[in-house]
Amino acid sequence: MTTMAEQEILSNDDMARLVMDIFDKHLPFNRFIGLEVDKSDLSKARIVLPWQDSLMGNPFHKILHGGATSAILDTVGGLMAMLHAVKDAQPMTREEFRQRMANIGTIDMRVDYLRPGKGESFIATAEVIRKGNKVAVCRMELHNQDGTHIAFGTGTYMMS
Amino acid sequence: MTTMAEQEILSNDDMARLVMDIFDKHLPFNRFIGLEVDKSDLSKARIVLPWQDSLMGNPFHKILHGGATSAILDTVGGLMAMLHAVKDAQPMTREEFRQRMANIGTIDMRVDYLRPGKGESFIATAEVIRKGNKVAVCRMELHNQDGTHIAFGTGTYMMS
Amino acid sequence: MTTMAEQEILSNDDMARLVMDIFDKHLPFNRFIGLEVDKSDLSKARIVLPWQDSLMGNPFHKILHGGATSAILDTVGGLMAMLHAVKDAQPMTREEFRQRMANIGTIDMRVDYLRPGKGESFIATAEVIRKGNKVAVCRMELHNQDGTHIAFGTGTYMMS
Amino acid sequence: MTTMAEQEILSNDDMARLVMDIFDKHLPFNRFIGLEVDKSDLSKARIVLPWQDSLMGNPFHKILHGGATSAILDTVGGLMAMLHAVKDAQPMTREEFRQRMANIGTIDMRVDYLRPGKGESFIATAEVIRKGNKVAVCRMELHNQDGTHIAFGTGTYMMS
Repeated sequence: MTTMAEQEILSNDDMARLVMDIFDKHLPFNRFIGLEVDKSDLSKARIVLPWQDSLMGNPFHKILHGGATSAILDTVGGLMAMLHAVKDAQPMTREEFRQRMANIGTIDMRVDYLRPGKGESFIATAEVIRKGNKVAVCRMELHNQDGTHIAFGTGTYMMS
Repeated sequence: MTTMAEQEILSNDDMARLVMDIFDKHLPFNRFIGLEVDKSDLSKARIVLPWQDSLMGNPFHKILHGGATSAILDTVGGLMAMLHAVKDAQPMTREEFRQRMANIGTIDMRVDYLRPGKGESFIATAEVIRKGNKVAVCRMELHNQDGTHIAFGTGTYMMS
Repeated sequence: MTTMAEQEILSNDDMARLVMDIFDKHLPFNRFIGLEVDKSDLSKARIVLPWQDSLMGNPFHKILHGGATSAILDTVGGLMAMLHAVKDAQPMTREEFRQRMANIGTIDMRVDYLRPGKGESFIATAEVIRKGNKVAVCRMELHNQDGTHIAFGTGTYMMS
Repeated sequence: MTTMAEQEILSNDDMARLVMDIFDKHLPFNRFIGLEVDKSDLSKARIVLPWQDSLMGNPFHKILHGGATSAILDTVGGLMAMLHAVKDAQPMTREEFRQRMANIGTIDMRVDYLRPGKGESFIATAEVIRKGNKVAVCRMELHNQDGTHIAFGTGTYMMS
């Protein structure tokens, strides 16, 4: 049985909001490490990671583990790829939306670690540098709360 | 005051064991996501990640989050780089060892996601493809418990 | 007007031979730098680059320019992607084949330079590590005539 | 016997000019494919590649071969790395300079192909995103004469 909600036709803004909600609340790993999606602008991928000691990658200093850096960069690039996918999409049902999103995934990613990840809060952003229906490429950046640039990422995402 | 333990001269095997201990027990992020270092062979980097639901990267399916994949690949490459660094090192004190290890870090990494991360347990391995005192390059692989190949990694590590 | 040759239906072996011919004889840049495609096995991508002084990337030593290394690695990965595309393809006309091939291209590539490119002849090989109708990923290697390993490559290719 | 020229002490500007001269005139492969170094600003890496049919990577269309794209990106990144190395270096003799430059080389590079390489002239630029005495990382870009963005590169360079 399909519920009424499933038959509802989603607008582009509805879809962008849903994508942000999924990344913010429904991906267990994102919650586990404490990622918070900034939903103030539906066209922008921006994720905040507040410091917690469990993110330490060094037994002596409060420095973000490189794995946490790569995780947040992969995530913000994937979020940007999905926002890009829904921006100009035809309106669709929730079920069509779900199938569409299930096809999106990272093919490959490069991370460039620029500086030690020191900070109280980390901000990841992304932009699309290659737009496409089949494949998109994003560039990602990680800064701390003071604007210190910690890492770059480049990710290639399957779009359909 | 320096304790006797600090003045103790470490052999290459001592150092390899210490590196494995650090990665296994003293890196908070590694413990947080549940990485277990296989210490049965001091020359090999092998890390196991047992499945837990908090590693899910998909709201519908039990699939490893791409960020967890990149985190374990970065970690196993870093472990391999450190094992490589201590293998032919001159014996040194614990304090010298600590300083030496503090200089090792990831410069950049590429991850290639090959298949969805399905499994009960994930095994990451690494080998050094470019040996050097200043920079080393490792290739990493992630398989599940059945030998299904899930991802490749290539990491460049600062060695001094 | 379509010639008879255009209407001819190509078998998988015909297509593989055509792909090899194109890379060997009809890509001006490949001829320019002197790439020679090994056509002895229709399932394998293997390209040979004989040394010539114009490939020098160093004013003092006979070392292959890093740009020549990346060029041959990109090329052998693209050749492998095309051979992979035609291997299980339905028989098609020459015109369909041409359109199919025109869609194949490199999305991104990583090159790892392992050792100085010294040698009289360089051999590039490739294998497919991610198979797909939309995107394929290849790993490439460059050795010299003595088997010295000079470089690794990883390339992501658009397939349709 | 050392000539007087060898004993001459080079200033930072002397060294930057020498680096540009080497890339412009003394690297055989650069001359072979037609690279021209823009020497108007000693702090900036900018290389121009005028179209010639031998650079074609497609039998039907005038499109730059992906290998030519990766070659020019690797080259402009290497030029930038060297300019960065000499910018703050202590004055040194020509022989010391030569030894210093001989140690600089590409460790790894990623190329992202964004659009087909159509144009009459291609302009490659680079900037340093990770500065270091041992390792530097550059980001490179390729545009055509109209400003169309054709490719991105990211390169990690050994500096000593």
